[in-house]
Amino acid sequence: QVNGVRLWASLMELAKIGATEKGGVKRLTLTDLDKQGRDLVTGWARDAGLSITVDQIGNVFMRRDGEDNTLPPVMTGSHIDTQPTGGKFDGNYGVLAGLEVVRTLNDKGIKTKAPIEVAFWTNEEGSRFVPVMMGSGVFCGAFTLEHAYAAKDIEGKTVKDELERIGYKGDQVPGQHPIGAYFEAHIEQGPVLEDANKVIGVVPAVMGLSWYDCTVTGMEAHAGPTPMHLRKDAMQVSTRIIQEVVAIANRYPPYGRGTVGMMQVFPNSRNVIPGEVKFSIDLRNVNDELLNTMHEEMLAFVEKTRQETGLGIKIERVSYYPPCPFHPDCVGAVRNATAKLGYSTMDVVSGAGHDAIYAARVAPAGMIFVPCKDGISHNEIEDAKAEHLEAGCNVLLHAMLERAGV
Amino acid sequence: QVNGVRLWASLMELAKIGATEKGGVKRLTLTDLDKQGRDLVTGWARDAGLSITVDQIGNVFMRRDGEDNTLPPVMTGSHIDTQPTGGKFDGNYGVLAGLEVVRTLNDKGIKTKAPIEVAFWTNEEGSRFVPVMMGSGVFCGAFTLEHAYAAKDIEGKTVKDELERIGYKGDQVPGQHPIGAYFEAHIEQGPVLEDANKVIGVVPAVMGLSWYDCTVTGMEAHAGPTPMHLRKDAMQVSTRIIQEVVAIANRYPPYGRGTVGMMQVFPNSRNVIPGEVKFSIDLRNVNDELLNTMHEEMLAFVEKTRQETGLGIKIERVSYYPPCPFHPDCVGAVRNATAKLGYSTMDVVSGAGHDAIYAARVAPAGMIFVPCKDGISHNEIEDAKAEHLEAGCNVLLHAMLERAGV
Ligand SMILES: NC(=O)NCCC(=O)O
Ligand SMILES: NC(=O)NCCC(=O)O
Repeated sequence: QVNGVRLWASLMELAKIGATEKGGVKRLTLTDLDKQGRDLVTGWARDAGLSITVDQIGNVFMRRDGEDNTLPPVMTGSHIDTQPTGGKFDGNYGVLAGLEVVRTLNDKGIKTKAPIEVAFWTNEEGSRFVPVMMGSGVFCGAFTLEHAYAAKDIEGKTVKDELERIGYKGDQVPGQHPIGAYFEAHIEQGPVLEDANKVIGVVPAVMGLSWYDCTVTGMEAHAGPTPMHLRKDAMQVSTRIIQEVVAIANRYPPYGRGTVGMMQVFPNSRNVIPGEVKFSIDLRNVNDELLNTMHEEMLAFVEKTRQETGLGIKIERVSYYPPCPFHPDCVGAVRNATAKLGYSTMDVVSGAGHDAIYAARVAPAGMIFVPCKDGISHNEIEDAKAEHLEAGCNVLLHAMLERAGV
Repeated sequence: QVNGVRLWASLMELAKIGATEKGGVKRLTLTDLDKQGRDLVTGWARDAGLSITVDQIGNVFMRRDGEDNTLPPVMTGSHIDTQPTGGKFDGNYGVLAGLEVVRTLNDKGIKTKAPIEVAFWTNEEGSRFVPVMMGSGVFCGAFTLEHAYAAKDIEGKTVKDELERIGYKGDQVPGQHPIGAYFEAHIEQGPVLEDANKVIGVVPAVMGLSWYDCTVTGMEAHAGPTPMHLRKDAMQVSTRIIQEVVAIANRYPPYGRGTVGMMQVFPNSRNVIPGEVKFSIDLRNVNDELLNTMHEEMLAFVEKTRQETGLGIKIERVSYYPPCPFHPDCVGAVRNATAKLGYSTMDVVSGAGHDAIYAARVAPAGMIFVPCKDGISHNEIEDAKAEHLEAGCNVLLHAMLERAGV
């Protein structure tokens, strides 16, 4: 049994870095605050006797030796970067739950057969730099290190420069780090467990995701003298596409998702008809065929809108990963641990992407969900119960022990 | 006859201050660049022998004495602030055409009976600070000096502080400056004259305008795990209102106008359902009853959307002025001058607001339009022909002489 109070205290301590007035956390990847968070967590790891490796994309691996160090480690991990309006638990829980597993093993003097590792991956959130889940993506070869290095934030700063600046561009070549099995504990970020009043979500799969940047180009002109029928209003044309994003998602229930979360209007003046509007599109589904159908329908609608309106519309896919079913052995280990500990449980498909889906490409992987308040995350009011976090951490401990051996 | 080459040269000189790469001008009101523009124009005025008064809202009056200085001056003017993506002619033309009238009178040694004045008004554009047409609005008592002083830009800087900072907070109480008659020459900012192949637009009236700030409040949540039917998506609800703005305008042709030019999304992250969206609404019509109907329909639609969606929607009117018919004497003077000079002409209702509508509340007023390329303005590619600008300036000269007497 882990120490839930210690786990909670660590979560609250880490949440002070980048704490917002509304009780959330704003600690965007590769900022000074991210560096502070990384330093705090690696400091704790050293105190717990772990050895630390950093790879070239800034992924950090914190290792507890096993009896047989030729065996690949059983790993757990997540991320400590947050959304601009993020909470205290998204990602951070998975990393600190891993640390709590290690602290518990230390307390009890338990030596595992295979080594145990706790990882945190760079830029999981993707809100400052695209692609999302960058560190684990590079690690598993979903895209190249060069591609990730070149990513720019809105100010034009690159991942490579920012990694160097905060001192987390390590030496190890990403992917050249063996993994025997990977587990990730995470808050659900959705309302399913809470609604069903269950404590542990076993995650059979993660939805696939398609991200797009869309730019509509009209002609900026004066809002007064320009007659309605002569306008090329990029805002109005954008609203059609934005509504279609939701319509497409609604055509493929229950796992279709469609969101426009980001928009920039040019020149953004109240008496100027917008000449250019850029926005993001996020489509998801747990079925890759359906996700592909949604993709095709999106492109077809954009083409139709281009023809109907005569405005310029550019749509570009900027991220994609297919749905990810997890490995039966790892899903099984999570089920076994939950049953042994007697927690109420159900299966929950993950709508959010997680580093685990990239880890799953190089090792057997599985996830453990715990409820979060009202299913809310990516919001400063994100909240979770200490007892649920403790339960998830206990499941993590036992699932890892099953795979690592004692 | 004025000197069209000199007029053009002055326009090009002033357009260097804040010149953009695309050939436009970005010289927002009360910025350092605005100060440079003001200094240049007042310098030219001093060279032409004019005396200068600045009032407390930063309106500048440049005076050429008449034979009888107890007569109220015949004034012309406009503004020299620009949109963020502005052109060389909007506003600047009216001010420099006035200066060219004075220079021409000087060249010919003509003494008018009443004094002649050239004015430029503070913050006509309204893109940095609301209300729009601020200087002339305070001058005519449409709103108070205190109200204008308190206006803030997005960074929180106030009009009062910025006026002081650039040294254009004068002593004169706004409105305590007599006006015998007011003329304003301006590019049309619409396509009507060019389409009809006419040189001079006589402006019978200016459309009324209603501006709103609208805020839709939903609940930010994760774009992946949050099922479609449980969302409170502020972006999606906003698109309904944005489309209705155009639908309302289209119900009241030919002078109904509806534009959403400005938008801010919060938190503006691609995998977060927007929790708050703010946008501007611009409604216009030349008929006050119809404008009022549009206003009522807007509010009713917002109310209906609030009820249908359950999201919070706040709508607030931030500017309003009724349609403004111009004074028959001044419209007549413009007609007479155009006829005398033999230019092709037609009546054009102004869709854009102008300082002239506020001047019209304290003196007889009229306007002169000249064509601009493709009817485009509030755009860096705004353009006009030297010969048209010269023609408009000639009309201005003769209309002013009719009212001032020689
Ligand atoms: N878990 C999480 O917030 N991941 C970010 C990527 C996504 O949008 O799903
Ligand atoms: N002429 C002009 O651009 N005025 C600004 C106010 C308006 O939007 O009509």
